[in-house]
Amino acid sequence: MAVQTIRWTGNAVRIIDQTRLPNKLVYINCRDVDTLWHAIKELKVRGAPALGVAAAYGVLLGLKDFKGSSSAQLVGRVCEVCDYIGKSRPTAVNLFNSLSQMQALALNNVDKPVAILKAVLWAEANAIYEEDRAVCRAMGKHGATLIKNGMTVMTVCNAGGLATADYGTALGVMYAAKEAGKKFKVYALETRPLLQGARLTAWELMKNKIDVTLICDNMAATVMKTKGVDIIFTGADRIASNGDAANKIGTYMLAVLAQHHGVPFYVVAPKTTFDLKIKTGKEIPIEERKPEEVTSFGLRPTAPKGVKVFNPAFDVTPSGLMSGIVTEYGIIRAPYVKNIHKVLLYDA
Amino acid sequence: MAVQTIRWTGNAVRIIDQTRLPNKLVYINCRDVDTLWHAIKELKVRGAPALGVAAAYGVLLGLKDFKGSSSAQLVGRVCEVCDYIGKSRPTAVNLFNSLSQMQALALNNVDKPVAILKAVLWAEANAIYEEDRAVCRAMGKHGATLIKNGMTVMTVCNAGGLATADYGTALGVMYAAKEAGKKFKVYALETRPLLQGARLTAWELMKNKIDVTLICDNMAATVMKTKGVDIIFTGADRIASNGDAANKIGTYMLAVLAQHHGVPFYVVAPKTTFDLKIKTGKEIPIEERKPEEVTSFGLRPTAPKGVKVFNPAFDVTPSGLMSGIVTEYGIIRAPYVKNIHKVLLYDA
Repeated sequence: MAVQTIRWTGNAVRIIDQTRLPNKLVYINCRDVDTLWHAIKELKVRGAPALGVAAAYGVLLGLKDFKGSSSAQLVGRVCEVCDYIGKSRPTAVNLFNSLSQMQALALNNVDKPVAILKAVLWAEANAIYEEDRAVCRAMGKHGATLIKNGMTVMTVCNAGGLATADYGTALGVMYAAKEAGKKFKVYALETRPLLQGARLTAWELMKNKIDVTLICDNMAATVMKTKGVDIIFTGADRIASNGDAANKIGTYMLAVLAQHHGVPFYVVAPKTTFDLKIKTGKEIPIEERKPEEVTSFGLRPTAPKGVKVFNPAFDVTPSGLMSGIVTEYGIIRAPYVKNIHKVLLYDA
Repeated sequence: MAVQTIRWTGNAVRIIDQTRLPNKLVYINCRDVDTLWHAIKELKVRGAPALGVAAAYGVLLGLKDFKGSSSAQLVGRVCEVCDYIGKSRPTAVNLFNSLSQMQALALNNVDKPVAILKAVLWAEANAIYEEDRAVCRAMGKHGATLIKNGMTVMTVCNAGGLATADYGTALGVMYAAKEAGKKFKVYALETRPLLQGARLTAWELMKNKIDVTLICDNMAATVMKTKGVDIIFTGADRIASNGDAANKIGTYMLAVLAQHHGVPFYVVAPKTTFDLKIKTGKEIPIEERKPEEVTSFGLRPTAPKGVKVFNPAFDVTPSGLMSGIVTEYGIIRAPYVKNIHKVLLYDA
């Protein structure tokens, strides 16, 4: 089932260049932080959990040419690299969570020799990668209980193996359901402007022999009404303390349409996608991307020259529109503030 | 304000090739029925009212090479041509209404000499064209009363001059509001898969110096929530007796989102778009178009080869989601069955 979206080669971060899919499956080696930064910016690697892994490995890349002899210098370098990678894209919190984790570890081990400190950071980045693999499978297992034989499922963007280390969040649920022998069909929204649904999700699901039908985003409502949809799964890029979730643009639309048509709507995301420092979705920074993503296709213009464009890459779905959030610990349901803290912090 | 979307040259139906916009403004002359049929099928000319005009002129094209001497033969030819044009696209009822009108006129005048019969048909087609021009301006005037200074307006697909003889339905309302000195801004949905919003509506509105911002279809919900939208206008391709309206795919989505966000939602359409032979929207045939519209851009694939696609060109918006239907006679509001009949048939 799995794709190898990202891995550490010992010398480079090896990623699938997702801008080339589905036409070509091309791997690229990011051998320095700058190359990785641009790969993130240009969506060659994308998806909140995959960005978490990429950020951790990015720190390792930043240490490759470190020639200093003091751990304090090394920690300084870690902080610089974290600061730089943190400026690549603003919305997915997994990226920042990974960077904080790496930085905190460096700071806590500043008294260790350079070689040890490097080894500790290396082990931590690998642990983040391995944890993502395990956590996606755990979410898959919990989420798969929601899929019954014969169901019609809907999803938006790509929350698959290509958005994580190798298995996926929303699509991981579908993989787990298939592994459990369930039969179901999937409608994948193409996800404008960059067509991650058409290019990546359709590719992944077909590769894994799951029955997928591609639709344009504006067809979701009529599919719910005329074909019937039983359940919707999406990923998330950042979830606030109250369960509000930022995810790919179009997710909020889908949640409103789901409510209107009585379709259960689930977000699938690991603990690392939660940002408990913020209370609601209003505090999540939403990346706006360049107009050309909307006004042209490749080099061919598809809109009048100079037209004004609004191109937010994400939107925020209020938790009130959700049936639940599938995590590695199980499915969190309303009341979200209480249950998110109970599950994630064990403090209730 | 006006564009010359379609006109009769005396020898040909001259249309703007809308598949070339916004990059090139190219006129083509359809000199025979077959060329016109393919222009309709390939959306070189599109929009329900424009299709009504095209169909009427198409009948004239079909008579160009008529060599017979009897009016009965001529009427036979009219019936054949109407039958053929009626197979081009199934959803917009204006096309069928025009064809019925031309055919009925021919049948009612079968006792006239060939030359007179031809002249009668020519006059009827021109009347259909002139009526569209007048009717769009009347709808514009009624609809413009709904736009207040400073409002934010939203629209989908192209219900502009390019969808009619020259002025537009939903966009006609905006042109009339502008002519009345009102200031407002417009969000135009790009309208996948064929981008009529990006290519045609943005082009028309910019040409007419109306403040337009282009968004992808999946951004409409977040624009309503975060930017605020005051009113929505769309066109229609066929309206049932109860007010249910088929229009470009994505319109139903927009109506559901409008209801959720409390945004008034108006359909703008002339009498010729109503199909009082059908009771509800369930009876409207919905055209499904080829998968390639969704899976490729020009010759470049954007989805995996062989992926299944659902590509309905239209959806149906239940009248319960509408604030009203703007017609040339005024704004029709609920209860729709009663008021549609009252306004259109003067029988209440």
